[in-house]
Amino acid sequence: MATATTSFEQRAAAATNPTTKHLFELMVRKQTNLAVAADVTTVAELLHIADVLGPHICVLKTHVDILSDFTTADAFAAKLRPLADKHGFVVFEDRKFADIGNTVKHQYRDGVHRIVEWADIVDAHTVPGPGIVQGLKEVGLPRGRGLLLLAEMSSAGSLATGEYTRASIEMAKQHKDFVIGFIAQRAPIPDDASFITMTPGINLTVSGDATGQQYRTPAQAVETGSDVLIVGRGVYTAADPVASAIAYKQAGWAAYLARVQAL
Amino acid sequence: MATATTSFEQRAAAATNPTTKHLFELMVRKQTNLAVAADVTTVAELLHIADVLGPHICVLKTHVDILSDFTTADAFAAKLRPLADKHGFVVFEDRKFADIGNTVKHQYRDGVHRIVEWADIVDAHTVPGPGIVQGLKEVGLPRGRGLLLLAEMSSAGSLATGEYTRASIEMAKQHKDFVIGFIAQRAPIPDDASFITMTPGINLTVSGDATGQQYRTPAQAVETGSDVLIVGRGVYTAADPVASAIAYKQAGWAAYLARVQAL
Repeated sequence: MATATTSFEQRAAAATNPTTKHLFELMVRKQTNLAVAADVTTVAELLHIADVLGPHICVLKTHVDILSDFTTADAFAAKLRPLADKHGFVVFEDRKFADIGNTVKHQYRDGVHRIVEWADIVDAHTVPGPGIVQGLKEVGLPRGRGLLLLAEMSSAGSLATGEYTRASIEMAKQHKDFVIGFIAQRAPIPDDASFITMTPGINLTVSGDATGQQYRTPAQAVETGSDVLIVGRGVYTAADPVASAIAYKQAGWAAYLARVQAL
Repeated sequence: MATATTSFEQRAAAATNPTTKHLFELMVRKQTNLAVAADVTTVAELLHIADVLGPHICVLKTHVDILSDFTTADAFAAKLRPLADKHGFVVFEDRKFADIGNTVKHQYRDGVHRIVEWADIVDAHTVPGPGIVQGLKEVGLPRGRGLLLLAEMSSAGSLATGEYTRASIEMAKQHKDFVIGFIAQRAPIPDDASFITMTPGINLTVSGDATGQQYRTPAQAVETGSDVLIVGRGVYTAADPVASAIAYKQAGWAAYLARVQAL
């Protein structure tokens, strides 16, 4: 099944990873392919974003390691998970694991953050080689979690190109039970609709920041195979974040409908 | 000045980054190029390793995010920094930053761990492009901290090779005030002794683990330009960790003396 010609309903029905199935189902139900990157530095702000924008998003992307008032994983999960259930979104901790297998196992499971306890999805760089996927899988697969691999990045001068991207794709194919997709600018495996492509650096109005981030519009990303559009500062720093989220949701979903209906 | 023909005394004298100077000076004073990777999951174990092995090491490499009983950065610093001062070693938080500039600034400075407060050195992957160095430098340079770039990895199938390694070297050259060296298997810039090369995956007896780690001996690493040898499980899981640390220290220092005296 090709990504571009397969609806999210069809992809939900065909999914084998429970997180993939859950995500596609809620995207269809809520008619949204919007992920919000909640790059805030307090738990209170994060929970506020999750509650206010929850009805409009399919994914809440977190950076738990920048939350200065984080106390315990239990307390965090007890507040975040009910919001995920109430509004219907998955939690994606954008940890960008990037170490050898033995280390990432601990980073995923242990420490004060105990990420595997409350994050449906995490992501990893492929630069350490396939051992990183193996290590994370030992922790996450028994819990029904999913992993995204970073096949490309949206920042200027990124080295995730060419052979690096191709090698990342091979690692995903070797671990299809746990690797549910990619962080990428375009669908890395366009003929396999079981993989989800999530794309950061989406913005309707600006084209860059001071430290190398580069932006594209929702329509540009969906046309090249993106399934989930990750918007950060475009939403949560807007004067009216809810109105902004709705605008992104509508633009992203219209682009998705155009993609599947055009074929 | 070439790395292989320049003594640590000479490199200390020529150093401009304060962390580089401090590190070379204590290496000479203590006659050690041994770094211990304290990959333990409690603060108590970490502090025990720091205190017991402190006399024999130049670098204590930490993974703060796997410490399950970590409470606050202030409490952690109040226990760890006096040990660093007492024994004379630098603290290297092996965070492997790997995100865009705007995100890594927060990850380095904020969150419960507030890494910049207590770590002399951190490291970063180059895959996001030069914005990651720029972001970290804004936080770390005013504090006199130093950054290592991952130019190569010791894990099987690593993608940090060829053009990736060459691009990493260029990023280091562009930010010599803050990038003090590399995590690499051999000196990436052998004709510039201002850069420090630290090499993980060092072991006197075993050659690999179950998730892709590959090992080399101290002599092999020093011959190819490594300045600081990072030993993990080879020391802290030994029956007698102090005896093991001394054995690694002596093997590493003998290899260093052979390197500078042979030329």
